[in-house]
Amino acid sequence: MLKEVITVSLGERSYPIYIGSGLIGEAGELFGFNGRALILTDSGVPTEYSRAVARAFAGRSEIFTVKEGEGSKSLSTLEEVLCAAANMKLTRKDAIIAVGGGVVGDLGGFAAACYMRGIAFYNIPTTVLSMVDSSIGGKTAVNLGGIKNIVGAFHQPRGVLIDTDTLKTLDERQISAGLCEAVKMAATLDREELERLESAGGIGEITADITRVISRAICLKKAVVEKDERESGLRKVLNFGHTLGHGIEAEAKGALYHGECVALGMLPFCSESVRERLLPLLKRLGLPTEYGGDIELAAELAAHDKKSVGGAVEAVFVNEIGSFEIKALPFGELLTLARAAYK
Amino acid sequence: MLKEVITVSLGERSYPIYIGSGLIGEAGELFGFNGRALILTDSGVPTEYSRAVARAFAGRSEIFTVKEGEGSKSLSTLEEVLCAAANMKLTRKDAIIAVGGGVVGDLGGFAAACYMRGIAFYNIPTTVLSMVDSSIGGKTAVNLGGIKNIVGAFHQPRGVLIDTDTLKTLDERQISAGLCEAVKMAATLDREELERLESAGGIGEITADITRVISRAICLKKAVVEKDERESGLRKVLNFGHTLGHGIEAEAKGALYHGECVALGMLPFCSESVRERLLPLLKRLGLPTEYGGDIELAAELAAHDKKSVGGAVEAVFVNEIGSFEIKALPFGELLTLARAAYK
Repeated sequence: MLKEVITVSLGERSYPIYIGSGLIGEAGELFGFNGRALILTDSGVPTEYSRAVARAFAGRSEIFTVKEGEGSKSLSTLEEVLCAAANMKLTRKDAIIAVGGGVVGDLGGFAAACYMRGIAFYNIPTTVLSMVDSSIGGKTAVNLGGIKNIVGAFHQPRGVLIDTDTLKTLDERQISAGLCEAVKMAATLDREELERLESAGGIGEITADITRVISRAICLKKAVVEKDERESGLRKVLNFGHTLGHGIEAEAKGALYHGECVALGMLPFCSESVRERLLPLLKRLGLPTEYGGDIELAAELAAHDKKSVGGAVEAVFVNEIGSFEIKALPFGELLTLARAAYK
Repeated sequence: MLKEVITVSLGERSYPIYIGSGLIGEAGELFGFNGRALILTDSGVPTEYSRAVARAFAGRSEIFTVKEGEGSKSLSTLEEVLCAAANMKLTRKDAIIAVGGGVVGDLGGFAAACYMRGIAFYNIPTTVLSMVDSSIGGKTAVNLGGIKNIVGAFHQPRGVLIDTDTLKTLDERQISAGLCEAVKMAATLDREELERLESAGGIGEITADITRVISRAICLKKAVVEKDERESGLRKVLNFGHTLGHGIEAEAKGALYHGECVALGMLPFCSESVRERLLPLLKRLGLPTEYGGDIELAAELAAHDKKSVGGAVEAVFVNEIGSFEIKALPFGELLTLARAAYK
């Protein structure tokens, strides 16, 4: 089958990303991995995907299913996954394979990072969001005490497989939410892509072009991660929309998708001209631009985010499409900007 | 105060080990660290030590005390430590400082490894065992389902401080158990040191010379870690006595100290001539050489250790003092050797 391969170059931690239609059944050959594997999925992912992977690793894999949703990104679910790995007697030569969205990717990646102090991790993202963003770059984590991703590790996957056929089982809202990360990357780093997204008639036209949109976003993210694997500088650009976005996500308690929170989280940190361009694009993609929740609480939760230092929160600002600036923002200013953005 | 400094050279992860009398009050200046710190200790460690460290970081630290014993090396205690760090609002510029033995060192090191995907860790070991072994080299972990150290990370400390005055509050059994790791290192890598330990009249004479014994063991361990940080080869030598030792430790359920289990764990994996030299030395140090527990169960638990691969367990053999050999051992052979050793 026709497939595209993008390599993330990180020295001995380099790995390939395979993109194409119908690839999931080829996971065995593509990953070229001979050990045993725990296949981690969640109850919201069609079982046919994890079963196809289990067939690709027949006789040397087991499927472990956690509950759908952000609630599974917890230390207690991590313990369940680690126990499942121990019960399978996985060794240092074995692996964890995540099949699903960002939740199983983040959870499975962290489990692989700390099981026996690190075993191989492979990721098979089946949502737009995880394809364009969370499956690449080695950030793994669970949440604790309402703080998103506060416990985790940098642990690069050994391989990522994107079967674009899996997008067929996503509903429109999930696709829209995922596309928001592509908009985020275009807004900060890729003016041409943002123009292309703007020129599309609507979500249908973009969906028809989804493989290209995903590949382009991955290439951008790959370049950022290659330059700054551990987020000491440039990589922070990927947090555009995420500072307040994480607060909104915590405040919404599951009512909003991650990508929807990022859409809302971008708007307060744009110049007026950028905002005027993002607003219609987000709306056309079916993403929220108005926030009906408790913005004070969301801002407060954002201020407790792990990126806060000494009472200030780091936020990414976009004054012009294709560029960005990182500023430390005192809590008061964060709240003022947030209030003004949704009036 | 007179102090010795040993540097572990691991490129950007290099760090100093300070050794001397009365150093604990100088932790602030020696570590030269300006952030805030969670000081982790356990209920078995004299409170004066953690208080001295808190004074050294006055106004920017909090003490968190977990229960004494191996039971605290669990994911649930890890969660408590991480919650304490989050409640203090520790950021990426802050640190966790462990004050105590191997339990808080392993637990605190792992908490630092995964809090916000990694913050600084400092270690102030107050037992012989943790001074000569576990505080150096970056191995951190907790236990799960009866399997020792199966969940963890490689996370080097930023600094280690050994105040030899803290040894005064240890009882003789703890000192003996700690010295077993020094014996282990001498048996595999340092013939001269083993001869020196053999020539000592007894535990009293060795204790009088403890600073030198500790420094020498640290220098050996440092050299091993510098050559093989992630235990892909040479570092496995440090597991001498630990393959079966971990099984015995699990079987004994807290009745034996780690060092005592290592003493027992070395005996089945020696040539007859080495065994004849280790037996009187271990006895003179007050370490056990006879095992009254369930050796079948201990061997079975050892076989489930994380170093087992494909039904075989890796074990370090010493045929001649100052040398070693690593062999994969089928479970049946492990049991045969273990049975024969304690007849």
